[in-house]
Amino acid sequence: MTDNHRYCVIMCGGIGSRFWPYSRSSRPKQFIDFLGTGRSLLQMSFDRILPLVPKEHIIIVTNEQHAPLVREQLPELDESQILLEPARRNTAPCIAWAMYHIAAKDPQASVIVAPSDSLITRENIFIESIKKGFEFVESNDALLTLGIKPTRPETGYGYIQIGSKTDGDIYAVKTFTEKPRRELAEVFVESGEFFWNSGIFIWKASTIIDAMKTYVPDVTNIFDKGEGVYGTEAERKFIAEHFPGCMSISIDFAVMEKATNVYVECVSFGWSDLGTWSALYDNSPKNRDANVTQNCNVLSYNSSGNIFAVNGEKLVVVDGLADYIVADAGDVLLICPKAEEQRIKQMVNDAHLAFGEKYL
Amino acid sequence: MTDNHRYCVIMCGGIGSRFWPYSRSSRPKQFIDFLGTGRSLLQMSFDRILPLVPKEHIIIVTNEQHAPLVREQLPELDESQILLEPARRNTAPCIAWAMYHIAAKDPQASVIVAPSDSLITRENIFIESIKKGFEFVESNDALLTLGIKPTRPETGYGYIQIGSKTDGDIYAVKTFTEKPRRELAEVFVESGEFFWNSGIFIWKASTIIDAMKTYVPDVTNIFDKGEGVYGTEAERKFIAEHFPGCMSISIDFAVMEKATNVYVECVSFGWSDLGTWSALYDNSPKNRDANVTQNCNVLSYNSSGNIFAVNGEKLVVVDGLADYIVADAGDVLLICPKAEEQRIKQMVNDAHLAFGEKYL
Repeated sequence: MTDNHRYCVIMCGGIGSRFWPYSRSSRPKQFIDFLGTGRSLLQMSFDRILPLVPKEHIIIVTNEQHAPLVREQLPELDESQILLEPARRNTAPCIAWAMYHIAAKDPQASVIVAPSDSLITRENIFIESIKKGFEFVESNDALLTLGIKPTRPETGYGYIQIGSKTDGDIYAVKTFTEKPRRELAEVFVESGEFFWNSGIFIWKASTIIDAMKTYVPDVTNIFDKGEGVYGTEAERKFIAEHFPGCMSISIDFAVMEKATNVYVECVSFGWSDLGTWSALYDNSPKNRDANVTQNCNVLSYNSSGNIFAVNGEKLVVVDGLADYIVADAGDVLLICPKAEEQRIKQMVNDAHLAFGEKYL
Repeated sequence: MTDNHRYCVIMCGGIGSRFWPYSRSSRPKQFIDFLGTGRSLLQMSFDRILPLVPKEHIIIVTNEQHAPLVREQLPELDESQILLEPARRNTAPCIAWAMYHIAAKDPQASVIVAPSDSLITRENIFIESIKKGFEFVESNDALLTLGIKPTRPETGYGYIQIGSKTDGDIYAVKTFTEKPRRELAEVFVESGEFFWNSGIFIWKASTIIDAMKTYVPDVTNIFDKGEGVYGTEAERKFIAEHFPGCMSISIDFAVMEKATNVYVECVSFGWSDLGTWSALYDNSPKNRDANVTQNCNVLSYNSSGNIFAVNGEKLVVVDGLADYIVADAGDVLLICPKAEEQRIKQMVNDAHLAFGEKYL
């Protein structure tokens, strides 16, 4: 089996509302140069996968609304490599469609499925880990998920408990646990048996399709009706008609927590889901006052622990501010303590109630 | 003597650096709709004077740089009513030029001289006070200044101590005191003898010119050289050549604190020099959380005592902020405690050092 059967699906349909107003419905966080590197999170995800699969084998799944952003940011992609969801239905229908699409073209395909908005460091380790994962699923009918060695008792992540060892760093999965309480998270980390659920999967397209037929037949029944359309001009029309009829369900809940052939590869590259401002703060380089500045010039006085996310050439001058988020998106300015960021969703709701769609 | 000899000079040359970045060198505070009324402070000053002097008798003195702003905001003015200073030389040379200009046209002229950036409320009282002041200087060779009955022991203002009573609310001036310490300011207010120095003057042009000839002959010697040019096409060239040679000195220091025919009219209309963000806060309407919002929509949570000065349609969402200035000028965002606003000048200097003219 050669590399020519290896594919990648980058899931790019998120709306990033937790980073409002810096991330907007018109430009969610994966399309933003969040780390000031000159490349958006999506572009960084694409770059990272290039050493692993042929460029033509990279598929982006996104919402129809964001097709222009994908085309603009990844002009090297052929239009056939962009799958546009006509509705948001969580990860299971998204993955099902991508797998049917790839399997129709290459029944032997093995696929890495990854979110577009994670931060990954130590990419050499990432590449070696993914290669081992591909080799494992290519010789086993296995659903492989990547578990990150935890570095702290994070309560915002899901955890995977490992079972018996199979091959190198690959273990059978014993349990999945969603966001644990603090005390439990501490026990998890100390035990050495628990790993963060990265949401990165590797499998043969045929293996995951078989598992979905067993555990979410309502979804696969819909995609089975499309036999013969995948990769043809008829695919778009078929999807427009049938995709919205899929239930909204995550791949974890639909398959990974139920199937018996689920394995976890324990990896140690740097990883963050960048799901919160605090995570972004923790993962960003800081200046000598422990402030993080995104794309802007900051003059700070008596201020530390802040994250400034401000578009463009703007100058921020700040005095006497500690541990705040200052996010400026041109028509919206947010000033909020980092510790209160879980309230941002409510603020977005309030803005919606008060001003309609204008500031969303 | 009729109203036809009454004139007004509005001094409009300030740069408003204390309100940076909301007030910029390209658009100082007097040109901004600071109170959200739809009229700039300059326009409000103009409107306020209209019931008192003929429109054609209102003269604006400003810096050459800001001529387009004056023309834009007061299109009803004839070009001959705008005097453009080729250099900044404080108030005495500014007033001297305006007086020579007016006296050449009307030797009998009486003039109210007022800053363009004060806030005045209870305008009916203002109008009655100014009328009385005009009548007083028209029948006496008096330099009249307006003293505001103080409402608090403000340390940021100058105070005028009254002497013997002459006519109604008009008194001889005993002393001028610049920004007193707190304890002294409290004594001043309790005594009932001290009034805030408003920087508003009323006098005959001939009276103030005579006084300047006595106390700042270096300045009047320059303007005397221009005899015959005032009100002609040659005036502009004369001023360009000679005005920059004037010493930079205030009218208070040059004349008012020295002359013997100085009187104060004690008035009780509402007045603020709007010289600081805190003054602007104090003089602006507040919402139920005691926040002041200038021209913007604010969603505030756990926040009070703030002033938000943000251009345009911008939405500000703020959590956990008390007693701050939040000023957004498009390319500069300032977040600073109200109590620290005296540091803003240093911040402007730092921005200048770090980024040159860009953000000034």
